[in-house]
Amino acid sequence: GVLGSGDFARSLAVRLVGSGFKVVVGSRNPKRKASLFPAAAEVTFQAEAVKKVDVIFVAIFREHYSTLCDLADVLAGKILVDVSNNTEINHHKESNAEYLASLFPACTVVKGFNVVSAWTLQSGARDGNKQVLICSNNQEAKRTVAEIAQVMGFTPVDMGCMLSAREIENIPLRLLPAWKIPIFLALGLFLCFFTYNLIRQVIHPYVREQKNKLYKIPIEVVNTTLPCVSYVMLSLVYLPGVLAACSQLYYGTKYRRFPDWLDQWLLHRKQIGLLSFFCAALHAVYSLCLPMRRSHRYLLIETAVKQAVEKKMTVWVEEEVWRMEIYISVGIIALGLLSLLAITSLPSIANSLNWREFSFIQ
Amino acid sequence: GVLGSGDFARSLAVRLVGSGFKVVVGSRNPKRKASLFPAAAEVTFQAEAVKKVDVIFVAIFREHYSTLCDLADVLAGKILVDVSNNTEINHHKESNAEYLASLFPACTVVKGFNVVSAWTLQSGARDGNKQVLICSNNQEAKRTVAEIAQVMGFTPVDMGCMLSAREIENIPLRLLPAWKIPIFLALGLFLCFFTYNLIRQVIHPYVREQKNKLYKIPIEVVNTTLPCVSYVMLSLVYLPGVLAACSQLYYGTKYRRFPDWLDQWLLHRKQIGLLSFFCAALHAVYSLCLPMRRSHRYLLIETAVKQAVEKKMTVWVEEEVWRMEIYISVGIIALGLLSLLAITSLPSIANSLNWREFSFIQ
Amino acid sequence: GVLGSGDFARSLAVRLVGSGFKVVVGSRNPKRKASLFPAAAEVTFQAEAVKKVDVIFVAIFREHYSTLCDLADVLAGKILVDVSNNTEINHHKESNAEYLASLFPACTVVKGFNVVSAWTLQSGARDGNKQVLICSNNQEAKRTVAEIAQVMGFTPVDMGCMLSAREIENIPLRLLPAWKIPIFLALGLFLCFFTYNLIRQVIHPYVREQKNKLYKIPIEVVNTTLPCVSYVMLSLVYLPGVLAACSQLYYGTKYRRFPDWLDQWLLHRKQIGLLSFFCAALHAVYSLCLPMRRSHRYLLIETAVKQAVEKKMTVWVEEEVWRMEIYISVGIIALGLLSLLAITSLPSIANSLNWREFSFIQ
Repeated sequence: GVLGSGDFARSLAVRLVGSGFKVVVGSRNPKRKASLFPAAAEVTFQAEAVKKVDVIFVAIFREHYSTLCDLADVLAGKILVDVSNNTEINHHKESNAEYLASLFPACTVVKGFNVVSAWTLQSGARDGNKQVLICSNNQEAKRTVAEIAQVMGFTPVDMGCMLSAREIENIPLRLLPAWKIPIFLALGLFLCFFTYNLIRQVIHPYVREQKNKLYKIPIEVVNTTLPCVSYVMLSLVYLPGVLAACSQLYYGTKYRRFPDWLDQWLLHRKQIGLLSFFCAALHAVYSLCLPMRRSHRYLLIETAVKQAVEKKMTVWVEEEVWRMEIYISVGIIALGLLSLLAITSLPSIANSLNWREFSFIQ
Repeated sequence: GVLGSGDFARSLAVRLVGSGFKVVVGSRNPKRKASLFPAAAEVTFQAEAVKKVDVIFVAIFREHYSTLCDLADVLAGKILVDVSNNTEINHHKESNAEYLASLFPACTVVKGFNVVSAWTLQSGARDGNKQVLICSNNQEAKRTVAEIAQVMGFTPVDMGCMLSAREIENIPLRLLPAWKIPIFLALGLFLCFFTYNLIRQVIHPYVREQKNKLYKIPIEVVNTTLPCVSYVMLSLVYLPGVLAACSQLYYGTKYRRFPDWLDQWLLHRKQIGLLSFFCAALHAVYSLCLPMRRSHRYLLIETAVKQAVEKKMTVWVEEEVWRMEIYISVGIIALGLLSLLAITSLPSIANSLNWREFSFIQ
Repeated sequence: GVLGSGDFARSLAVRLVGSGFKVVVGSRNPKRKASLFPAAAEVTFQAEAVKKVDVIFVAIFREHYSTLCDLADVLAGKILVDVSNNTEINHHKESNAEYLASLFPACTVVKGFNVVSAWTLQSGARDGNKQVLICSNNQEAKRTVAEIAQVMGFTPVDMGCMLSAREIENIPLRLLPAWKIPIFLALGLFLCFFTYNLIRQVIHPYVREQKNKLYKIPIEVVNTTLPCVSYVMLSLVYLPGVLAACSQLYYGTKYRRFPDWLDQWLLHRKQIGLLSFFCAALHAVYSLCLPMRRSHRYLLIETAVKQAVEKKMTVWVEEEVWRMEIYISVGIIALGLLSLLAITSLPSIANSLNWREFSFIQ
């Protein structure tokens, strides 16, 4: 049974029908809404729909839960699946599922399917690892809903008792939580190093020698800033591991919890590393663009003309040649190795490596 | 039970034996074929094999289905799994599975396993999300086959009733259907812009000033064409969303189906976007190659020599310098952002994002 | 039940409790160890713990298996899950699981969970396709453990009878086995071609004309070596397919096993191809860096000055211009196509292609 006639209710009905279930939809206005649902689903009044089924998906907003109170008698003893989401993280004190359970103490409430979008329900049947997180205080009801999810082509994941409902409801509202700190860190470092390089390469020559080097800002200053950010970020990937090892050695045990800041730091290493790689890759592209610039061309011609006028034939400085050759060579090798690291952090590749292979590549 | 002795039958027997099933293979020439099957599988005559088992995989070609008619009595009441594929899309009016069902009305026919290759059957046990699409009119039989698939390490997906068999049989014959239109679109745009740029950069100077600029065709003309294609494709990714929104505002409802062309367009956005990124990336590589060319070197030397002879010392044009610095700088940033978009379209990464994160990145 | 109090035992208990199981932990020192386990798990003496449960995870080292012999009577008839790993490949004659089974003939031993790390157990619940390989001589026990794995959010894979235990125990000790031969092959080829190019570009001019070209080693010599390696590796990807076809034509059958070396070669094609792409990509980056070098700049200025002094105005060599333009153009297109091949070898993309699409792209 499905209560509700919004997008999610319709997509749910479509998928349930497609997976071979008999579906009854309860709506307050069944005649007007029937055309929205698949033909195989029976659309009827809420009270009637509820009578015919044992498992009921409650696809209505939290604010309207109380409108179902009239049906309390008919609902008694049935399994209610709360599929709702909130619009803000920790909007209400208790999770929607807990609220539903408090309204209908005679029902068994299961939280689930809220992490799946209406779009996935309609189209994604063939796309492998879509997970449906499920929690409930009743093992039996949880198993029933898990089986329905499996037949629908999802992978049910048991998240334990009803208390996890709030966590499950917050998942669709997450906005890349693991990336927030690393991104602000990278931006902060970029700003610091950019200011330093701006002063060093543009403002200082202007103040001292009145030379206008403003044209260096968009490329050259950015290009000397990026590797600084990349290096610092890369060192921040490996530093917390060393600190953790020191802490374990100092306290003589590995069972002592790390302080919270170190724990957070250890958990963000992958993201910091990927941002470090992103900066290094941008630095490579910026560097490769250097000889393409007009300024490069003009300076080259200027030098050539000056030497031709002075009849100075050779300009070979062996040390500068070697420095540049080695610098570029080491840079390419470093970028190549960092690329391998970045590729192994793709979920589908990381999953196929065992622990020993992962440490070897690191 | 497995009927047949081709590659697929053998691989199926290997995997079934490996997953702990007792396998009986029915062949018309059991003595000659026995050596091809794993030792644990019993190879015997078809009639005998069929007697011993309840679930029979029919791994023979559609054209030979009728040769099984002699076994109709023994087969009655058993589950036949049709694993066959066609050689052409919609080759026959009815699907192979429906044809098999019409030949053996006393059997329960289940379609399945045709999307798995013999190679995957033999080797891919440890490779996660391999799906097996299953359909049948009999829920009970479908469940039995789904359980077998699960024990073999596959993820069974219920595709509903027997009518879906044709769709399932067409899947292994697909050839990147979602990419056809976007690729032809990209090729068409490329041709148009290439012709325009060819006329503008090569033919026009030749006609007007008799200058031979043919050497520009392989790199410079292509390089000015690619970003045009990329821009138009990128705008085609975001345009249908705007059209869809307008259509919804105009009709005042989001439940009205979009016209078919708009629906198709909306569904191809990901592919159009990836081709746009591919063109942008190629444009970046082409641009980076510009200073590597002989022609670049010759023109540079020519300018230097000319100025040296004229004793013209400085050639700095501030406006041109700035234009190029900003142009390159913006180009790199755009490519960096587009790369992030392209990376998040990888299935394994897209699966780990929720809807809010996906829209944020878009 | 869980026997043991190491990292793995704790993580296992955490996950089992989180998945809704009732967990009893058996330890030799329950009071001291209780604080390490989740509150919901009961920590008690080994003998007591074993009495209360039917499925027992033996999370202790192989060397300490014999300490459990006192419990043999209480353990009789129960399912023992061996989760242990070795420290070396094929360290012992028999697998740990077989050794455990020989110590407790009255128990049913199942091998499993050893491929999952303690870290994955604690944190990875939501990460799709984590597989747990299971084997046992008892189908019933295997099914029980597979169900537990499924409820914990893993994908159980049936690996057949107890003999597979050794294979399963070796899996976490693998170190990229499929990559070893291709990597040594690439290194070998690199060394050969590097020596040849070193003699040709650096040593020969020095011996003949006393010219010091040592600065060419880090970039130019490497850059002419990489495409040679890449080409040979690419041809080694397609050669074994041709040899296999010839062998099949010669023997007139496709059921004859290929010789072992050809079989190994065929299985390593993907890795050889990816290394070929890696060399090609490095070659592209090295080439793009060429105009960035000091040596390039000096040589350019030298030529310009020489010509200016000689008043030689034009230096355009049509043939050299065309050769370079076409060379670069073909190189970019080849790299673009090779990138597409490399992208489709990512597991998550390869899984979404059918056989026909895969061959088309190849």
